[in-house]
Amino acid sequence: MVTVQVALGSRSYPIHIGSRLLNRVDLILPHLAQPRVAIVTNPTVAVLYLDALTQALTQAGVAVLPVTVPDGELFKTWQTLNGIFDSLLSNRCERKTTLIALGGGVIGDLAGFAAAVYLRGVPFIQIPTTLLAQVDSSVGGKTGINHPLGKNMIGAFHQPRLVLADMATLGTLPPRELSAGLAEVIKYGLILDAAFFDWLESNIDRLVARDPEALIHAVQRSCEIKAEVVAQDERESGVRALLNLGHTFGHAIEAGLSYGTWLHGEAVAAGTVQAARLSQRLGFLGEVDVERIVALLRRAHLPAAAPDLGVARYLELMGLDKKVEGGRLRLVLLRRIGEAYVSTDFPETDLRAVLAASCP
Amino acid sequence: MVTVQVALGSRSYPIHIGSRLLNRVDLILPHLAQPRVAIVTNPTVAVLYLDALTQALTQAGVAVLPVTVPDGELFKTWQTLNGIFDSLLSNRCERKTTLIALGGGVIGDLAGFAAAVYLRGVPFIQIPTTLLAQVDSSVGGKTGINHPLGKNMIGAFHQPRLVLADMATLGTLPPRELSAGLAEVIKYGLILDAAFFDWLESNIDRLVARDPEALIHAVQRSCEIKAEVVAQDERESGVRALLNLGHTFGHAIEAGLSYGTWLHGEAVAAGTVQAARLSQRLGFLGEVDVERIVALLRRAHLPAAAPDLGVARYLELMGLDKKVEGGRLRLVLLRRIGEAYVSTDFPETDLRAVLAASCP
Repeated sequence: MVTVQVALGSRSYPIHIGSRLLNRVDLILPHLAQPRVAIVTNPTVAVLYLDALTQALTQAGVAVLPVTVPDGELFKTWQTLNGIFDSLLSNRCERKTTLIALGGGVIGDLAGFAAAVYLRGVPFIQIPTTLLAQVDSSVGGKTGINHPLGKNMIGAFHQPRLVLADMATLGTLPPRELSAGLAEVIKYGLILDAAFFDWLESNIDRLVARDPEALIHAVQRSCEIKAEVVAQDERESGVRALLNLGHTFGHAIEAGLSYGTWLHGEAVAAGTVQAARLSQRLGFLGEVDVERIVALLRRAHLPAAAPDLGVARYLELMGLDKKVEGGRLRLVLLRRIGEAYVSTDFPETDLRAVLAASCP
Repeated sequence: MVTVQVALGSRSYPIHIGSRLLNRVDLILPHLAQPRVAIVTNPTVAVLYLDALTQALTQAGVAVLPVTVPDGELFKTWQTLNGIFDSLLSNRCERKTTLIALGGGVIGDLAGFAAAVYLRGVPFIQIPTTLLAQVDSSVGGKTGINHPLGKNMIGAFHQPRLVLADMATLGTLPPRELSAGLAEVIKYGLILDAAFFDWLESNIDRLVARDPEALIHAVQRSCEIKAEVVAQDERESGVRALLNLGHTFGHAIEAGLSYGTWLHGEAVAAGTVQAARLSQRLGFLGEVDVERIVALLRRAHLPAAAPDLGVARYLELMGLDKKVEGGRLRLVLLRRIGEAYVSTDFPETDLRAVLAASCP
């Protein structure tokens, strides 16, 4: 087991990464304010892991309330959140009851936001069971739900007390979801760590084949980078924005196709290529760099080409993104592989040209 | 104009109290991150004050989006909140757009919670137009909505940038709402300031008659006490709980009669008498003290007798209150007039006896 620490003063917490951590109740107990938890999960994950976790906690004297919500991004809504509140309230969960998110990114965002606003805030723990959640959404405290007019538009910053990333859970992950997680792993190399990007080029086949040693390294390095960034800028007023490489394009893709058609990681992959193409037009990346990015994403079985939504629809959807400032669109672009920057200062004609290439 | 400062480090803010502050845009401008605001209000308040505020802001170059929601505690729901999000999103309000709450406690709670979770948090300003909101809900950052299973069950701590308490708005307040505000004013004397309680006994008729000088003093002293308490304990892990005197009983009354039948302040008044009666049974208050409290509330035209909900229903409703810890009910009780304490350590038989007296 390796541990990455997220340094946020009184809200600091550890990320434990290793195999078969799900039964390691000794890692959980020190973080509970009372011997009582509510585990938020979905039927797909519940079948695989809920019993084992519940049994381990119960044996340690912890009362467990299971709260099952429907599976999928389509259900990251207020209706689902309200269902969680109904369970918590009718079972009289208290301010010291810990919410545990057991599942992927949707579960983490939902349970985290529920924890942020239930009784104005209760503690929570992340047990991410997808690669995407392990390297991205479970770390950093972003929680929230979607709105018909935009993804993650309603939410809160609410840090977990603990993140438990069990590599064993990746064994049951559908290949498409493993790939979606790799999109975010590749993003970390692109924005801040060229050497990690090189390592990924050499090891992408091992990752796709789920080599445990390679997976642990990829999750650890990704969490280290994210933890560093979040420690510097918890509420995304500066450097944290770099983590959104490919995300403004990606959110437009997700919303344009209606949520759930493409996985988040797939949309981010195609969006990253669009951001790279725009960076290229601005004179930063060469064609060789863009081709390296496209090739790595393809080897991870990710889409490198964005869908044709029409340029006007893209612009409309991107304008609704949270990262708009003073009416100007803010995008994360690449100066080179391993170095990203935030820009509001790009000609709209270049953005349109990149979008037009996706909409022939 | 007098100013009370709420000291919360980087989240500190001023409460300005005076007459005709609504047009004092110079007090608002320094707190805006961009020249754009959304004003959340209801039709009742809008008719009286929205035009004047909008005009003053527009003349100063600030773009104003009015967001009107239905009037009343019955509408402090997720549905109403979603309506606010719809407006903000379809008008592309951004992370630096300030939300202004123009109205009473319901508007402040709704707009504050909207500000807490819209795009994971935007700035907001409170312009409370009821006495209750001026002395209580607009100060301290508690925001939230009701749930069918309990009042204020979903919410967040989100501090305003500024509170503007304009005494002129109290001129249009229905008498019943003025009295409801006085319930919270009386509470401050009871929990922390016996001299203020004495002053209220001498000046309650002036307050009921809306003497401006008396009102300013009552609002100022109430805000000073609340600001002190909140500065010591923003998230209610200790002393802040004292502010809930009468509220656990009061919430049960509100929920038991279904929200909106009694005003919050009316329920708190009757709940305060129940808390005083329990304190008396525990040997702290004498009959004379309880009679002083009842007499002052009656002179403020407040109900001193709680409704008959049945003891079992009371206990059920109180058990769902947020102030439950480890299965034990926590209540704020009085050691004497001017000194409150939090207790989980009272015989249930005494609580039942007090409730039974309300349910003959």
